[in-house]
Amino acid sequence: MTRYDADTLRATLFTLFTENGASADVAETTARILVEGDLLGHHTHGVKLANGYLKDLKAGHACGDHSRLEIQENSPVAALFDGHYLLGPYLVQRALDHCRDAATTFGIGMVSLKRSHHIACLAAYLQPLVEANLVPLILTSDPAVASVAPFGGLDRVYTPNPLAVGIPGREQPLLIDVSMSTITNGTVGKTRAAGDRLGHPAILTGHGEVSDDPEDYFASPEGSILPLGELAFGHKGFALGLMVEALTSALSGYGRKDSPEGWGASVMVMVIDPARFGGTDSFLDETDHIARRCLGSRPRDPERPVRLPGQSGLSRRRDYLDNGIPLPPDVVEAMREAVADSSLSGNTAFG
Amino acid sequence: MTRYDADTLRATLFTLFTENGASADVAETTARILVEGDLLGHHTHGVKLANGYLKDLKAGHACGDHSRLEIQENSPVAALFDGHYLLGPYLVQRALDHCRDAATTFGIGMVSLKRSHHIACLAAYLQPLVEANLVPLILTSDPAVASVAPFGGLDRVYTPNPLAVGIPGREQPLLIDVSMSTITNGTVGKTRAAGDRLGHPAILTGHGEVSDDPEDYFASPEGSILPLGELAFGHKGFALGLMVEALTSALSGYGRKDSPEGWGASVMVMVIDPARFGGTDSFLDETDHIARRCLGSRPRDPERPVRLPGQSGLSRRRDYLDNGIPLPPDVVEAMREAVADSSLSGNTAFG
Repeated sequence: MTRYDADTLRATLFTLFTENGASADVAETTARILVEGDLLGHHTHGVKLANGYLKDLKAGHACGDHSRLEIQENSPVAALFDGHYLLGPYLVQRALDHCRDAATTFGIGMVSLKRSHHIACLAAYLQPLVEANLVPLILTSDPAVASVAPFGGLDRVYTPNPLAVGIPGREQPLLIDVSMSTITNGTVGKTRAAGDRLGHPAILTGHGEVSDDPEDYFASPEGSILPLGELAFGHKGFALGLMVEALTSALSGYGRKDSPEGWGASVMVMVIDPARFGGTDSFLDETDHIARRCLGSRPRDPERPVRLPGQSGLSRRRDYLDNGIPLPPDVVEAMREAVADSSLSGNTAFG
Repeated sequence: MTRYDADTLRATLFTLFTENGASADVAETTARILVEGDLLGHHTHGVKLANGYLKDLKAGHACGDHSRLEIQENSPVAALFDGHYLLGPYLVQRALDHCRDAATTFGIGMVSLKRSHHIACLAAYLQPLVEANLVPLILTSDPAVASVAPFGGLDRVYTPNPLAVGIPGREQPLLIDVSMSTITNGTVGKTRAAGDRLGHPAILTGHGEVSDDPEDYFASPEGSILPLGELAFGHKGFALGLMVEALTSALSGYGRKDSPEGWGASVMVMVIDPARFGGTDSFLDETDHIARRCLGSRPRDPERPVRLPGQSGLSRRRDYLDNGIPLPPDVVEAMREAVADSSLSGNTAFG
């Protein structure tokens, strides 16, 4: 498989975004975060997204003008951002920068962000903060989409609602990025497009049966994605999904009650500085202790030792930075489409 | 089943705690939170716990002297509490009060609490804050206990690590209290004592098989509790468990690396004021909107409509306040034992 250089990918995306009206800082941040997604191996949430972002920029459904961001500082540690559908990676990065400043002075900073455009791969934002021994948290929901049913119900009400958190550690930082549902909307669509079955039954059909067939999601009556915990413990995934829903949309003041349309996100961003609680050194000591205990556990399958959240991604990232990123065919195709329409046409690895 | 009056239970516990050296405020808060657990229907985490708390007070493993609490205010919104094993309900309530003051001024307040004694039922703390339109969060782990194995592993490393959050709503507030594992240590012990099978297979045997027999947890080689998500999606429950571990023990500076013994807890408490983000009214509107959408979903089983987190508990609470609390036999027996050893012996419903 052809490998693609991360710097070149960033430069290509930067040009594409600026040609479509994005300010330099918006283009740079969005390009960096998308490539970071692929570096961590999350190819559904990496540069593949650029094509859709560019279409939304062209159609006026996404905004590239950094000056549109409205920041309402309600206290030194609490702010509300109105993103006016600026590209999400720019908004989330600005929110993290804002929280980081607050956290290093006060121990915590928190931003509630409404009307963001799509925010890409949550794990992609964590590493710089974790390396500064800070704890970043990002929660998000998309109030324009419903794919998960409440536990015990059949009707789609909310989204997978992921939560990401970075845990600093000397030996092995933890990059956590998990949804509160069994699988994501992306997995359902991708598996269906490939004509495959899901790895595990994660769909509840419109008749209330559990299924591993993504077609059941799109059938009539329509199916839904099961919450984390499935039929046995799904009340927990449902509760956690509602928590993310409340801390994102409800807290921002803009959510499902406002019937938004199009690609968007409500986001909560927080940064915590352990130095203002029990201290950075003992935080790192404890992370290292737990990481060693987990990695030292006898594996259930001797072929598959315990892995920590983010461990595979960070190992891939080191490889991909040195040797290039092996983009899957669907990603290459999306990049081809994005480039074809630009001044770069004929001058990149994508044509 | 005999029903017990909530006020009388509180008064009984208050006397028992003060007779064993607890300051009046420690005794009052602990009594109130324990009874609150039973009012919400969580009888394993209600007044049943008093007997164990009293034993630890007598043995010097728990502290009842409120003056031992050390508060280190590291910023107006960030504090570290060293609980010196004061009764947990008192410490958590103090932490919530501290966070509430910070949140109403700054939008957020956060306390990291180390060396707490056991903190009882997390849901029991939420209602007063939720009724004031604030969002309380409580996360906890017990660094002296290991019962859950890392995903893919067989060795017990950490605890169920629950997370509680209260979501204000005009029609139906949400009281969320869920662990990041399939079941709790308490459920394993209680089911074993009754000679029953678990409701769902939630144990991983020491040989790596999934089981619904609680005996497999205690067998040799010993079993463990499966993370939320079980074998299919347990990497998510594992990641969430590590998040709670980090935000409690690591953040407090005191955890598993310090090899603590006895009943204890590391706790993170946070309060968020929606008024300092998108506004209280729109928060309540959004909660009401989501609650209606969930409750309006067609149920999977027509006999069992969708219920929101906390809905059953709050409905029980109204009944129990009016008509008394139907304490199960094991709780009555624990109360009998606690009373027998006190000045109240012969003067209560428990003998």
